[in-house]
Amino acid sequence: MDRSFAPEIQARIDNKTKPLGSLGLLEKVALELALIQSQDKPQAAETIEIRKPTMLVFAGDHGIAEEGVSIAPSAVTQQMVANFLSGGAAINCFCETNQIDFKVIDCGMLSPIDTSIPNFKDHPNLIEKRLGNGTANLSKQSAMSLEQVALGLEYGAKVAEQSISGGSNFLMFGEMGIGNTSSASALLTALSPLEVDHCVGLGTGITHEQLGRKIKLVSQGVGRCYELDVKGVLAQVGGFEIVQMVGAFLEAKRHKTPVLVDGFIVSVAAYVATLLDKETRDYMLFAHNSEENGHKFVLECLQAEPLLDLGLRLGEGTGAALALPLVKAAAQFYNNMASFESAGVTV
Amino acid sequence: MDRSFAPEIQARIDNKTKPLGSLGLLEKVALELALIQSQDKPQAAETIEIRKPTMLVFAGDHGIAEEGVSIAPSAVTQQMVANFLSGGAAINCFCETNQIDFKVIDCGMLSPIDTSIPNFKDHPNLIEKRLGNGTANLSKQSAMSLEQVALGLEYGAKVAEQSISGGSNFLMFGEMGIGNTSSASALLTALSPLEVDHCVGLGTGITHEQLGRKIKLVSQGVGRCYELDVKGVLAQVGGFEIVQMVGAFLEAKRHKTPVLVDGFIVSVAAYVATLLDKETRDYMLFAHNSEENGHKFVLECLQAEPLLDLGLRLGEGTGAALALPLVKAAAQFYNNMASFESAGVTV
Repeated sequence: MDRSFAPEIQARIDNKTKPLGSLGLLEKVALELALIQSQDKPQAAETIEIRKPTMLVFAGDHGIAEEGVSIAPSAVTQQMVANFLSGGAAINCFCETNQIDFKVIDCGMLSPIDTSIPNFKDHPNLIEKRLGNGTANLSKQSAMSLEQVALGLEYGAKVAEQSISGGSNFLMFGEMGIGNTSSASALLTALSPLEVDHCVGLGTGITHEQLGRKIKLVSQGVGRCYELDVKGVLAQVGGFEIVQMVGAFLEAKRHKTPVLVDGFIVSVAAYVATLLDKETRDYMLFAHNSEENGHKFVLECLQAEPLLDLGLRLGEGTGAALALPLVKAAAQFYNNMASFESAGVTV
Repeated sequence: MDRSFAPEIQARIDNKTKPLGSLGLLEKVALELALIQSQDKPQAAETIEIRKPTMLVFAGDHGIAEEGVSIAPSAVTQQMVANFLSGGAAINCFCETNQIDFKVIDCGMLSPIDTSIPNFKDHPNLIEKRLGNGTANLSKQSAMSLEQVALGLEYGAKVAEQSISGGSNFLMFGEMGIGNTSSASALLTALSPLEVDHCVGLGTGITHEQLGRKIKLVSQGVGRCYELDVKGVLAQVGGFEIVQMVGAFLEAKRHKTPVLVDGFIVSVAAYVATLLDKETRDYMLFAHNSEENGHKFVLECLQAEPLLDLGLRLGEGTGAALALPLVKAAAQFYNNMASFESAGVTV
């Protein structure tokens, strides 16, 4: 990303009626957003515009769930997607209160949403991009084929592109998928310098005994990944929703569109995207530091400074939805706060 | 505060469609708000209502500013209040973006706002509650009289009462006053077990050399406080805006109205209020951990868990205004999230 306007943007921020740097992290967010919105422009953006912020929740099932490394069975993925469509989940509440457009993508749950149920027929918030009926068990075999990886990247790109061409210039990604912390942990272990026990965590609340087993199963998958390229690793230990998020990150970068990154799983997808195209990092903002063990480590790999630290460990995009008002506040001060001259303040 | 409904409220939270405890700090906020709104009711509140959230910014000047312990001269207090009335300050931006009613109270600046300026005449956001033309220099003499303390507590109560009777059931306090970190540090040193060098910090950006001098001046004021009661200490080293905030906290508690506490100075006022009436603590929520040195210590004294940690050091109530959407999100999930039964989720 072209950062040549950074000094001009920083000077604008520094001339607002406040002590230098006193808005902390919000000043960094304003700088990054203004830089993004200054790309290909003759001068630095005078205002930051956040238009139709959109939450895309990618859902998929995971063969490894049969190993009992989650607090819930795979059936809960679909039940929760139905809950999303009915508007009863945490992510619905936070999208509602923060005025965020919401879509859920079926990337390949065990079975599709039953659209013979009248409420779910042609539901405007459901996007079908199925890659299969859940992945294979990554602890034993390749989770998916290379063809599925390629199609998943394409599907994810299409989903992001549709939101952008539909008028959004600010995306958030979330996820739902019983077993997907195992897949994310395996990807992170295989593709980063981190050790497996830094990458595996308690998910939404397994016991420490289950954790030992989860580490072993993840390690088995990682053991098949040596000398594979990124797409090869995605095929071995990825998830349908994670692959599609990687595709969506790549597409967002093509459109110079920022993405506010949610928790551990979305952050791993973000990290994988940076390995395929390091410039995707320029378009990422980070919502929060979750309770999941590996999250702080992947955030370090990404040199990310997240906005929130609320002890969340829910997924669904909830952290990103909760952080959006801070991003809007950063835009608001950049756009509308007086300068020392205009306000007659003599510091 | 009567906490007898706590188990019932917690059960309601635990039955939402999410892993137990997975919304972290937001769950604690929802519990506290629901408890507050269940007071004097026959059963636990089924919904949390946040009505007309209102930011009250208390402004005053400080004699100690003549010692050069701030980055700006006292004149800037009034200039910033004028900026608040013109809508150009950070707090205006954040109140605007988060739909917060805004008032600024002149608690005793060096001189009143010039209401011969047409824009400021009868300004609906300005409340005049002047206790004098700034306090005396607390490093040398009593900052104010005991009569001014009593009147300040009364004025602050009146300001809070007017907001509540005007329809608000959720208050936020902020402050503006060149020199007021010195006053807050002196109050905290005199009234807590903390040492002076834990209580004094860089304010909005003085040098480490100035810091040494600030510690010495604050210590001189504190030296006059031994064996005085809380109101006596307020007279010796308080500030007009701090005394009025203490009165406002006491009044909010009388009306069982929660207050979202901003940064260091507001937190010190909150702490002083708890010394006068320990039940005021039940009605406090904490917005953020600021960069000011003493803030984390006063938050510990208050056993507070703040929502945000953004590196802010601006004051004005900005942290509280930025945290409000998280409080609204907590109310939203408490009110509208599905239960496991209603959503048909079988975890």
